[in-house]
Amino acid sequence: MPRWESGADARLVQAAYELYLERGFEDVTVAEIAARAGLTKRTFFRYFADKREVLFSGSAAFQASVIAAVLDAPDDVAPIDAVVAALAAAGAGLTALGEGVRKRQHIIDASTDLQEREMIKLATLTSAIGEALGQRSVRGPAASLTAEAGVAVFKTAFERWVRRNGPVEFAPLVDEALNELRGLLAHPEPGERP
Amino acid sequence: MPRWESGADARLVQAAYELYLERGFEDVTVAEIAARAGLTKRTFFRYFADKREVLFSGSAAFQASVIAAVLDAPDDVAPIDAVVAALAAAGAGLTALGEGVRKRQHIIDASTDLQEREMIKLATLTSAIGEALGQRSVRGPAASLTAEAGVAVFKTAFERWVRRNGPVEFAPLVDEALNELRGLLAHPEPGERP
Repeated sequence: MPRWESGADARLVQAAYELYLERGFEDVTVAEIAARAGLTKRTFFRYFADKREVLFSGSAAFQASVIAAVLDAPDDVAPIDAVVAALAAAGAGLTALGEGVRKRQHIIDASTDLQEREMIKLATLTSAIGEALGQRSVRGPAASLTAEAGVAVFKTAFERWVRRNGPVEFAPLVDEALNELRGLLAHPEPGERP
Repeated sequence: MPRWESGADARLVQAAYELYLERGFEDVTVAEIAARAGLTKRTFFRYFADKREVLFSGSAAFQASVIAAVLDAPDDVAPIDAVVAALAAAGAGLTALGEGVRKRQHIIDASTDLQEREMIKLATLTSAIGEALGQRSVRGPAASLTAEAGVAVFKTAFERWVRRNGPVEFAPLVDEALNELRGLLAHPEPGERP
């Protein structure tokens, strides 16, 4: 990478966030992001496939850290606990970034297009967790159910974290959501066979 | 609707399924679907926004029936049981259509674009279920967690149904998946506080 582009990706991300918050995601062009960062469109496309991907550039690293943690969990840890612990750790790393993460969510919440992109990233994460559990000899349907439950817990914790202002620890929110999910499922239907 | 177009939507759906299965979704055009059905492109676009939507034309009715059932469930039924019963009933209606549903899934499984569209439809269904639970006075996070758990159970049951050949009852697969999810979550981490 030529010397003059050093830090280009960070400058592009900052410029994009500023513009998305000022004017709304839909109304901002790649040319404007590049101009605000003092760079060219060509440089933009060296780092990002499109203006949506600026907001999802951390997704691959997030997923990789979750999958590594699931695969590395000790064998005697229950699959759901391995998944939730992996998501809690990766989420703690994410939420430690603070206000930038809340701003990002604010931008996503204002755009159907971005919400769809985020759903797809989460669904991809869920599939990858299911496959990782498969490598830990959890059989197919249990693996995907566990992955879905873990990601549902993560989403609940993350939504709570986003809505609270100021510094909030992430891991306790994950524990709280997991306990809630257990409670929601613990009551069998009246008359159901035991 | 002019008389000569009677049944046009059903003919378009059948033509699209035939072509998608013969040549793959990506390689089929709207003009070809219309021609196979003996209709014009203009008629196609009177019924469907694009060639993907032919495969999702039942989504709105499916979602409406699930939401109506959630809202109509007796007050003494636990939210998770109301959601799972609603999805089981709507799913039973869907799977009663038989081989066409398996063919549809076969087409979707072969296309990333269609898989993304299906994820979005399921995420939309999940949000709508969460909102319906909110109307039943289930508070926000419990509502969305319950909706996610219910949809995860539905997806697991549906995947099993699709993979089995011949007539298979849907409702028992849903009960099986719900019991599995309960089992997966029932084992607290060693050393966890009770």
